[in-house]
Amino acid sequence: MKLFRHGLPGQEKPALIDPQGQARDLSGVIDDICAETLTPAGLQSLRAIDPQSLPLIATPGRIGVPFANPGKFICVGLNYADHAAEAGAEVPKEPILFTKWSRPTGANDPVVLPRQSLKTDWEVELGVIIGTQARYISREAALSHVAGYCVINDVSEREYQLERSGTWDKGKGCDTFGPIGPWLVTADEIPDPQNLDLWLEVNGKRFQNGNTRTMVFDVATLIHEISQFTTLYPGDIISTGTPPGVGMGQKPPVYLQPGDEMRLGIAGLGEQTQRVYAWDAALLD
Amino acid sequence: MKLFRHGLPGQEKPALIDPQGQARDLSGVIDDICAETLTPAGLQSLRAIDPQSLPLIATPGRIGVPFANPGKFICVGLNYADHAAEAGAEVPKEPILFTKWSRPTGANDPVVLPRQSLKTDWEVELGVIIGTQARYISREAALSHVAGYCVINDVSEREYQLERSGTWDKGKGCDTFGPIGPWLVTADEIPDPQNLDLWLEVNGKRFQNGNTRTMVFDVATLIHEISQFTTLYPGDIISTGTPPGVGMGQKPPVYLQPGDEMRLGIAGLGEQTQRVYAWDAALLD
Repeated sequence: MKLFRHGLPGQEKPALIDPQGQARDLSGVIDDICAETLTPAGLQSLRAIDPQSLPLIATPGRIGVPFANPGKFICVGLNYADHAAEAGAEVPKEPILFTKWSRPTGANDPVVLPRQSLKTDWEVELGVIIGTQARYISREAALSHVAGYCVINDVSEREYQLERSGTWDKGKGCDTFGPIGPWLVTADEIPDPQNLDLWLEVNGKRFQNGNTRTMVFDVATLIHEISQFTTLYPGDIISTGTPPGVGMGQKPPVYLQPGDEMRLGIAGLGEQTQRVYAWDAALLD
Repeated sequence: MKLFRHGLPGQEKPALIDPQGQARDLSGVIDDICAETLTPAGLQSLRAIDPQSLPLIATPGRIGVPFANPGKFICVGLNYADHAAEAGAEVPKEPILFTKWSRPTGANDPVVLPRQSLKTDWEVELGVIIGTQARYISREAALSHVAGYCVINDVSEREYQLERSGTWDKGKGCDTFGPIGPWLVTADEIPDPQNLDLWLEVNGKRFQNGNTRTMVFDVATLIHEISQFTTLYPGDIISTGTPPGVGMGQKPPVYLQPGDEMRLGIAGLGEQTQRVYAWDAALLD
């Protein structure tokens, strides 16, 4: 299933894309797509519905985050060997984990530069959405804890991330720096998360081209590793790192400017398009 | 006001401590203490109630986190110069920020060691709870954005924090590593957050003794700084760093063992008592 939510921020309605690619309204079936919806029982009850019995949505509204009240937003750094090389960093011995403070935004919502930001950058990433609560998850069982996958743009301010004391969090958690979606594609539709093409363009120029097969730590290993430290809950998000081609890695570096348009996607998971704006509080929720 | 919640995890009821020190039931007035309760309007409507008109609570149950659905849990590293010295680290030029993945726990809930953890440590800290949504907050206005203050134990696994690649998050976000409370003490009761004694004992031995006046970056500066990067929302938590006396700083280092008891407190904000347990999933919520 491809689950999504559409409507104004805070007023999104649940929906799905049926096998024929048509948008269908789920609001007669569930109030919203939330953490409980992402559990095996929640997804099973949705699978029991014949999509043809759901009302067609003629024109979906704004695409929201595909589920309400996302949990932890854990990200993985330098998880593609070729991206580590372009960042001038060694391939890590175990996953580098950090956290996004951003409230996730919709797939096509504005990306707003912080005031006086000079080094805001893009990162297309495979997002993994957890479906069951667990700690100390084995590698073998790890993928059974995944509700689904989605596209994430791990937008990053490089000066804040790398030149402002301490961890990366300052440059990763700015408002609008976490577009997620358009859909949450349930795990049954992605039998092998380690063979997905992913790409990102800015103003029509292709910058990132990769495949999840070149991850240093695969999805199962990441779930296993993170669960050694903390419990994962339904609705938690793991953003699994970016392939080469970020702006910081260009010679000379290229960063986002107001008016730029990012387009990015992952095979089977849909596409995002974000316009970049100078700081304007009115563009935030 | 001193707001708190009591009852089993997930079933907590709202309450307050009246000026005479008696526990009073708020459940006839509000369903719960949540982010909206912490806004100026929410607190104002509670202040309009005569505490004497509220039912007495003869025996409060387990003390829960003082508000439901906490937001971001942002922590500050090395924010007391004397603690930086004991950690062998330089005083940072700007705040070191990191994030706790832990769902906060009640003030006296168990602290559960991760499996095979050898280096779990304590950190008494002043917690700041945000009451209004804002970005780019001036230092001058910063304290007006505070709903209240509380005691936090920033429990930390030092091997995970310092020896496991990358950021500190692995050692800060383990389950049960964020006791908060017992109360949220509204800001009007704490006219000067930079003159609060704070202390922590393990098995009756005093390890930490400090005062918030020796913070490197005061509360107003921390709010200002964090808001340069991300919007703060009602219910967000800032844990402001720990004074000297952590286990890692002892010669030789001392770490928590199953059966240990931590007791910690901050003047005017109450006390916490936590028993330390070996890993046992049944002790988590």
